[in-house]
Order: sequence, then structure tokens, then C-alpha cells
Amino acid sequence: MKLGMVGLGKMGGNMAARLREKGHEVVGFDFDPEVRDVASLAELVQALEAPRIVWLMVPAGEPTLGAIAELSELLDAGDLIIEGGNSHYVQDRKNADGLKDRGIRYLDVGVSGGVWGRQNGYGIMVGGAAQDVERAKPVFDALTPDEGGGYVHAGGVGAGHFVKMVHNGIEYGMMQAFAEGFELMAAADIVDDVPGTFESWREGTVVRSWLLDLLSRALEEDPDLDGLRGYAQDSGEGRWTVQAAVDHAVPAPAITAALYARFASRQEDSPAMKVIAALRNQFGGHAVTRTTDDPARTPRS
Amino acid sequence: MKLGMVGLGKMGGNMAARLREKGHEVVGFDFDPEVRDVASLAELVQALEAPRIVWLMVPAGEPTLGAIAELSELLDAGDLIIEGGNSHYVQDRKNADGLKDRGIRYLDVGVSGGVWGRQNGYGIMVGGAAQDVERAKPVFDALTPDEGGGYVHAGGVGAGHFVKMVHNGIEYGMMQAFAEGFELMAAADIVDDVPGTFESWREGTVVRSWLLDLLSRALEEDPDLDGLRGYAQDSGEGRWTVQAAVDHAVPAPAITAALYARFASRQEDSPAMKVIAALRNQFGGHAVTRTTDDPARTPRS
Amino acid sequence: MKLGMVGLGKMGGNMAARLREKGHEVVGFDFDPEVRDVASLAELVQALEAPRIVWLMVPAGEPTLGAIAELSELLDAGDLIIEGGNSHYVQDRKNADGLKDRGIRYLDVGVSGGVWGRQNGYGIMVGGAAQDVERAKPVFDALTPDEGGGYVHAGGVGAGHFVKMVHNGIEYGMMQAFAEGFELMAAADIVDDVPGTFESWREGTVVRSWLLDLLSRALEEDPDLDGLRGYAQDSGEGRWTVQAAVDHAVPAPAITAALYARFASRQEDSPAMKVIAALRNQFGGHAVTRTTDDPARTPRS
Amino acid sequence: MKLGMVGLGKMGGNMAARLREKGHEVVGFDFDPEVRDVASLAELVQALEAPRIVWLMVPAGEPTLGAIAELSELLDAGDLIIEGGNSHYVQDRKNADGLKDRGIRYLDVGVSGGVWGRQNGYGIMVGGAAQDVERAKPVFDALTPDEGGGYVHAGGVGAGHFVKMVHNGIEYGMMQAFAEGFELMAAADIVDDVPGTFESWREGTVVRSWLLDLLSRALEEDPDLDGLRGYAQDSGEGRWTVQAAVDHAVPAPAITAALYARFASRQEDSPAMKVIAALRNQFGGHAVTRTTDDPARTPRS
Repeated sequence: MKLGMVGLGKMGGNMAARLREKGHEVVGFDFDPEVRDVASLAELVQALEAPRIVWLMVPAGEPTLGAIAELSELLDAGDLIIEGGNSHYVQDRKNADGLKDRGIRYLDVGVSGGVWGRQNGYGIMVGGAAQDVERAKPVFDALTPDEGGGYVHAGGVGAGHFVKMVHNGIEYGMMQAFAEGFELMAAADIVDDVPGTFESWREGTVVRSWLLDLLSRALEEDPDLDGLRGYAQDSGEGRWTVQAAVDHAVPAPAITAALYARFASRQEDSPAMKVIAALRNQFGGHAVTRTTDDPARTPRS
Repeated sequence: MKLGMVGLGKMGGNMAARLREKGHEVVGFDFDPEVRDVASLAELVQALEAPRIVWLMVPAGEPTLGAIAELSELLDAGDLIIEGGNSHYVQDRKNADGLKDRGIRYLDVGVSGGVWGRQNGYGIMVGGAAQDVERAKPVFDALTPDEGGGYVHAGGVGAGHFVKMVHNGIEYGMMQAFAEGFELMAAADIVDDVPGTFESWREGTVVRSWLLDLLSRALEEDPDLDGLRGYAQDSGEGRWTVQAAVDHAVPAPAITAALYARFASRQEDSPAMKVIAALRNQFGGHAVTRTTDDPARTPRS
Repeated sequence: MKLGMVGLGKMGGNMAARLREKGHEVVGFDFDPEVRDVASLAELVQALEAPRIVWLMVPAGEPTLGAIAELSELLDAGDLIIEGGNSHYVQDRKNADGLKDRGIRYLDVGVSGGVWGRQNGYGIMVGGAAQDVERAKPVFDALTPDEGGGYVHAGGVGAGHFVKMVHNGIEYGMMQAFAEGFELMAAADIVDDVPGTFESWREGTVVRSWLLDLLSRALEEDPDLDGLRGYAQDSGEGRWTVQAAVDHAVPAPAITAALYARFASRQEDSPAMKVIAALRNQFGGHAVTRTTDDPARTPRS
Repeated sequence: MKLGMVGLGKMGGNMAARLREKGHEVVGFDFDPEVRDVASLAELVQALEAPRIVWLMVPAGEPTLGAIAELSELLDAGDLIIEGGNSHYVQDRKNADGLKDRGIRYLDVGVSGGVWGRQNGYGIMVGGAAQDVERAKPVFDALTPDEGGGYVHAGGVGAGHFVKMVHNGIEYGMMQAFAEGFELMAAADIVDDVPGTFESWREGTVVRSWLLDLLSRALEEDPDLDGLRGYAQDSGEGRWTVQAAVDHAVPAPAITAALYARFASRQEDSPAMKVIAALRNQFGGHAVTRTTDDPARTPRS
């Protein structure tokens, strides 16, 4: 199968390579002249025959929206855009609606697997119409793991990115659970071998998981994690998960706790905790003095 | 009425003063010779006539337990110990049980009001048997606000400290709610007058409260709370509230969130967040290299 | 001062009445012919002299947006719309921007006080430009409590509804703190007099507040709250507070816990807890049998 | 190696069987005459030669404490008790201390793996002195998975049960994360194939794990989990984890959220939410009427 790939970075570049290894023909475009096959989206469209498939693998937001806008002018009715980046599921629906008049088809695909994907295959979560999914199925088959699995057509447009978002939200919660367990063991002065404990859990236990494998590797390299600061970014999809939970009246306390812990980790000092300190200070003897000075401000008793 | 007061610090000293102002006779003991009337618990007991009332206002834990042990040797059957400190409610029951054989009576009293209490009166929450409460009622009446209120006989031994503990747990939750609201206003770059907003809420709104009065005063003195670090101790009663909630299978997420926020505020760096950082690091390209070096450690795919 | 009031329900009607009592002239419009002075927005606009002030007190969303759209056609440059309902602060900015071309001014005002406001005065939180606020100041003065306070010009357009939103978020957290304390006391079988305990806290304690006053009244009427179901709606502003916190990377665990508790209270059964039950079930002996039947599905060990 | 096994239920019975398959000689005691080799602890002790090893696999609390007390009378100095049940780590230390005078050695062992363990091997987490661990090592080797791993000597007495407790706390958090993700997907009306989505995640994603395998199996059997009620017990170790976190000032919001969600799942109706409903009711018009009836109770304004 022949398709276009827009964005040849760490994700798009590896995916293009895997697709070629599996026998697909990929025409790649990127702003970096070193890695691209064509010099513009227009050339990319010309290099494909209708009905075309163009896979987008560029940063979410403006870059993705800009590429879609430009492609909407270049593509023909019946062509298919696959948005494989990290668009919000509501934006996917707007994208698809905007392309409808011109007859351009749209799929949204959540891609999991990171840098391991080229070798191991990717998790592929697809949203869109059945006939479009069918058309792109050979591409999905090439991307998913050789031993099968790792593929779902989750629903209509938006569903692919929605389930990828939920996947990442779950990931936040799982990571936080391990993190809390680590901190408790480190704090309690009871456990002599914390790395060995995590390592031992990799077999035979309920918590065995890929994240545990990764954590065990990290602790092997740095048993107390002394080389790291307790500082964690959030990717956006954790926020979206919480916001979707609030929108749908779904209690999501563990995932939200994980998100808030990351927020807090990035603060030099907590404004909220300043309020707590200020209030505790007001309870104290200092407050009495001030109140005597200004009786009108005396709190009600 | 004549009673003994053990512990004449910020709380006990003010309470003794208020009791005297209301016409009671107080014999005070403290380790500080400057403030005490008698030089030992033995002298204090001798200075009272049976049936005696001895009010303890000393730090929780060893000091309180030590005083009770010593008094159990000195007091007679029918005498009454009032534990007005911050004992845990389960410990109150052990204390009362331990005194039962000698016929010594026991009340536990939660006292609220801090440094404001001498002038405004104290909130008094009592646990114990009705006849003991009856006996000490004149003392409680002198301590509570002149305009009435501020008094409850909450239940049997332990109930006084239990409800005081819950009171403090609620206080944690309320403070945290204000703290989160402050931080959100400070972060959003929308509100030009944060102190004025809190001040305005003191009248006519749902959140009007003594804590809001205090917060408004604090912000009047230091509008951005720049003079404070976001660092908050916890008094022990917040922990007990959460542990009691867990013991009784009561979900207490807001109070617990307040407690955890204080824990986090005291950490230089978060061990848990180091785990998050380590895991995020493992996802990255660096990890691939290591795995190639040592395939046996490759995470399962 | 003469002004128009659109929406004469529980809030708008009482506000119009208070304004009239304070000497202002109010021309009221409502869909209910019984309560209105004029039969249409057009008539309302004609009944006022430029530069006009029209206060909107209609439900958020379509009703408010519709009224603004209609007024934008009827009003003249220099007229002022005061949106006193519950619009989202981001929508306020869109509203103000949409009116700018026509020279129509816009203030957003958060109003607190509910049914008590007509008698006690309202909490008024204003967002908008200083000259517009200045113009409407006599109206705000009439609405706020006679004894002063209850007023803030919080910032530019959107700031009024933003701080009202935060106020409601704080309210959520405070209510939840009291609710958890109540449940813990009810569960522990230690406290004989829960209503009396809350009543006693109304004086001399740290948690004294209007919400405590209300809770004490509710418990006086129904000591165990047996007449109520544990079911709580959320008004929308709690959700907005959490979403704003997420947008601004502010940890807000207590307010969020309060929101999630309301979500959970409305569920017949929890889908999330079905997952927990399912997983616990899978750990059990039943699972072994299935696995023996279908070895290919055996979880990795 | 020859050892005694006390408690031949689902766990102890399977462990005894696995030990025998690996060539160890097990003398088993149970209250059930059908499964036991000896009729009393005394007979069990007689059937072993000093220095003996007796493994306890009976319910936590009284049954375990009773067995230890009885064995302390029967065993000789140098004999070794291995407490493989679910004792609290603080209790382990008391147990070991109580046996010290008689020269009886003590190890605490957390055992993970449930009904799958006989076939797959168990996760074994040991606390105690190195020489005692060394002595029992052949037994541990027989219990852990054939392919290696699943074993840690975590620290001194108590450390085995401590890390098992933390393991279970982490398990709570991971399960809750999946549960929240499921509920969000079910609520959003976007995802057509929820079971297929979880199934797809089993390969190539960050969340792949044994728990996901189990959840996928459960959804294969019952795609909407309609056959289950959202009701979840907690085993005790989740509570202990939270209490240990509070004791050590470790924020554990995700694990705590998981515990509280289980608490809430078991409530017919939430007392806390009755308070929220009562307060919301007090805001309404009904409240005004009552206040008019009894002005003394009017909340402060």
C-alpha cells in the first residue's frame, strides 16, 4: 500500500520505517530536509494516487490544524486523512466536520508504544467510519505487534483519541500508585531492600506490569533515585481525562490525585499552603495583639 | 467551686484565670515555679478537699499519662480527673478503666478557642458519665461564652475528645478549601483584587465564617502572603480523624486531602514524584539504548 | 437611578424589590405576564433613557445568550449590560467582545445570598472596566448589605463570575468537610448527641460559620437526617472550578473531592466499583476453572 | 526438608502441595480432620525434629495469635515460626519479642499469588534475621516461581508483611485507575467497543499488566459487567497502608481514593451526602419560612 506520512520525528519516522519494513510504500514529508522524501504537502499529494491516504504525525494544536487546513485544499473527494497525533477528541469531530463538504474522509488514531514501537509494534486505537477503517486496515496491521493484538476500532470519529486519552489517564493512576508505595517504603525505615522488593514483584504478584518492569530497571540504576528531582510534567492527556470525567459526572479520584501530584511537584512553594500557614498563624498569640490594636476587626465569637 | 489545675501554660493558665474571674478557686500546679500555687501534685491534692476535681491541661502522651499515673496514687475514691488536653479518645477509655479500681472518676474534655478563649469563652465538649458531668458543670459554665452556647455533653468517656478531633478534622477541610480557592485566584491572572474579594465575602455569602475573617485579616497584612512559606505542620488530630475514618469505613476525601497537602508541604522533594520522573525517563529514548545492551532486561511487549 | 431588570424569578424579582425599596426605578421584563412591567425587551429598552443599564438575571446558557443577542440589536452605543446570572467567565469575555463593535458596555456580576438577599443584602462581585463599574455603583450599593461590605470590583470582564465560581468551589469544600465530620460521628457509635455537638460549635470554635448555623438548624429539625436521601446535585460552578484548577495547574484536591462525592451520590450503582468487583472475582477460584478451559487466555505469570 | 504447616485452606493447602511436589516433607495440621496429617499442634511438634520449622497459614488476628501462643509452649529454643498469614507488621514485632525469651525464632512472610500460586509459584516477601532466612531458604525456593524471581528478603521482622501490605495498597490504586477509566468510557457514549479497547491494550501499551489481563477476561465474559453489583470489600491491608502512610506523613492520595471508593460502594445511602442535601435545602425558600417563624435562629448575615 502507498501512503503519505507527514511528520518524521521520533514517532512518525519510526512508524514510516516499520511500514516500509512490512512492505508498504511511504512518501514522507517533514520540515527537516534531511529526512523527507518530498519538499511540501503539495508534492506529497502529487506523489500519491487517489484515493489517497495521508497520515499526520505532527504536534497537536496549531501544527496539526494547519496541516489539515492545507491538505483540505490539496486533497480530492474520497481521500483519507489519518490524524495519528494527540488531538483532543472533540477537535477530531470538528476536523471531520470541516472536511465533510469536500468529501475528504477522516480517521483519528491513538498510537501507543513510544520508542519501543518500531521493534515491538504499536498499540493502535482507531475512531471513524467502518469503510474508512477497512481501507486503512493494512496500514494498521503493519503497525501493530507481529504476534497480534494491540488493535481496536473503538467507535466513530473521536473514539480513537478518546480511548488513548483514557489509556494515559489510567497510566497516570498506575504510576502514582507505584510512586506512593515507593515513598511509603522509603519513609518507614523498615524495608532494607526497596529495589529488591520491586524486582521480586515482577513475578507471581498481582501488581506485575510493564510499569513495574520499568520501575525495577530505574531502581537498579539508581536505588534511591537520588539522581532525580521529584518533578513531573504532565502531557495534557491527564488533564483532558480529568476534564472529561468532570464533563460526564464520573468520579475519578485516583487519576485526579495523580494529576494534582504532578502539579504540586512543579511548584517552588505552594500558595495554598501559605494560606494554611497564615491561618495557623492567626490562631496564635500574635493575632491577639493585632486585634487589641483594632477591635473593629475582631473576629466574631 | 474549688479545683486543681495541672499545667498553667497558654491554655491552662488562661483557663485558670477565667475560672477565677468567674468566682472559682483554682489551685494551680506547673513545672514552672513562677506561675504555680503548689510545688507538686501531692501538695495540690492536699490543698483540695474530697471529693476533689483535678483538671489536666498538659501535653498529650507521656506528660498526661504520667500525671494520671501519679494522681491515681494520690487521689481518693470519688475524686474526679478531667483530662482537658488532646488525648486520643481510645486512650481516654484506657485511662478511665485504669482508674476504675481505685474509684477515681474520669471525664475527657475537648477545649476549643485557643488564645481567644479567656476573653470570649471556650468551646467545651465533654465525654463521661452524667453524674460526673453534673458535678463539674459549674466549671464548664464558667469556661463557656457568657452569651451561652459552646457546650455539649457528647457521650461517654472518649466522646469529648472524639468530637474535638472531628472538629479539628473539619477545620482542616475548611482551611484547605479556602487555600485552594486562594491559589486558583492567584494563578488565574484574572482577579486584580484577591484580598478585597475575600474581604467582600465576609458579609452576605455562603462561605462567611470565622476562618474567612482570619484569612481576610492575614491578607490585609500581607496581600500576596509573600512573607510566608507554604509550609504547614499538622497537630495530630487531623491524622487521628483520618485514621478514625479508615477504622470506621467512612470516606473522608476532603479532610484527607487537607492532611496530605500538609504532609507534602513539608517535603523538600517528593520521593513519589521521583518515581514518576524515573518512569517517564524510562519511556524515553535513553531506555532503548540500555535495553539493547542488556536484552534480558527488556520489558515484556 | 433607573434600570431594566430582565428575569424576575426568585433572584431577579427579589433584587428588583430591594432596588425599589432603596429608591431606584426598575423596569422589569419576564416571560411571566403577572410579574413584568413591560411585554418585551424592545419595550424595556424604550422605557429607559440612554445611556441605559439593563441587568440580566436569567438562566445561564441559551437564555442569557439569547437575551444578549436580542439586546445587542436594541441597545445604543454607551448602553450597559450587566450579566448577573451564572455565565462562565470565558463566555463573559466573548459576550463583551461581541458587543464591542456596537459600543455596548458589559459588566459581569456574581451575586451571592440567595433568598436571604432581599432582606440581608447580597454579596456582589463585579468584573469589568472601571468607568462602567463607576456608573453602576449606586445599583451595587443598594444591593449590598446595609452595614457595608459584600462588595468587590474583582478585575476586568470575567473576574466577577470567576470569583463567584471560586466562592462556590470553596463552598463545596466547606460543605464536604462538615459532611465528612457528620458521617464519622454518626458511624463511630461514640457520640450520643450529634446535633448538640454541632450546635455547641456555633460559638467559640474555629469552625463557626454560616454553613454550620444552617447545618445546626437542619439537625434540629431532623437529628439523624432520616428524612433525606444522600443525593446531591451540582450546580455547574463546582465543575467549572475544578476545570479552571486543571487549566491553571492548581492542585485542588478538597474541592474536587467534594464534587466527586456529589457525582457518586447520584449513581444507582458505580460502574467503577463493578470493575473492582470483577477483578476481585478474577483473583478467586472461579478464575482458575476458566483458565484451565482456555489456556491461551491464561494471564502471564 | 521437613516442616510443619498449620492451616490447610486454599492458601496453606496449595502451598503444602507445592512444597511436597518439590520434594519437601510437610506435616499438616488443620481443624478439618479430612485434610490434616496430625490432630493437634502438639502432635505436629512431636512429628518434627528440632530445630523445627512451623509455617502458619491461618486467618490474621485471634487464630494466628492463638496458634503462636500455643506453639510458644510446645516448641523448643532454636525452633522457627514462619508467620505466612496477613499479620500487621507491628504485630509481627510483638510476636517476635514475645518468643525471644524462650529462644524461639520468628520470620514474617508475605505471600502473593492466590489460587494461581500452586502452579505458577508464589511471590514471597520475607522479614527477619539473616540466619533464620537462610535456614528456611529451601522452603522459599520451592514456593517461588520455577523461572526465578518472586523472592525478597526485605528487612528485619515485620518487613515481609510491611512490603506485602504496600503491594496490596499499590494493587488498590492500580485497580482503581482501571475502574475509573472503564467508567469514563462507559459514561461518555463515544466508545462502541469497551471490551475490545481493554483487550487491545494488552499488547504494546504502557498499561499492560496482569490486572489488565484479568479485566479483559472479565469483560469478555460480561461486556458491560451487568452481572455484577458495584460493591467491593476491602481486605484490611488497604486500610493498613493508608494508616501507615498517615503515620509516616506520606501523602498517598491515589491509594486512599481507592480505599474510600470501596467504602462508599458498600453504603446504601451516604450520611455525608445527606448533610450536603440538608445544606442545599437550607439555602432554599423553605428555610426562609422557618426563619421567619423563629427569628432567634436566623443565621448571621
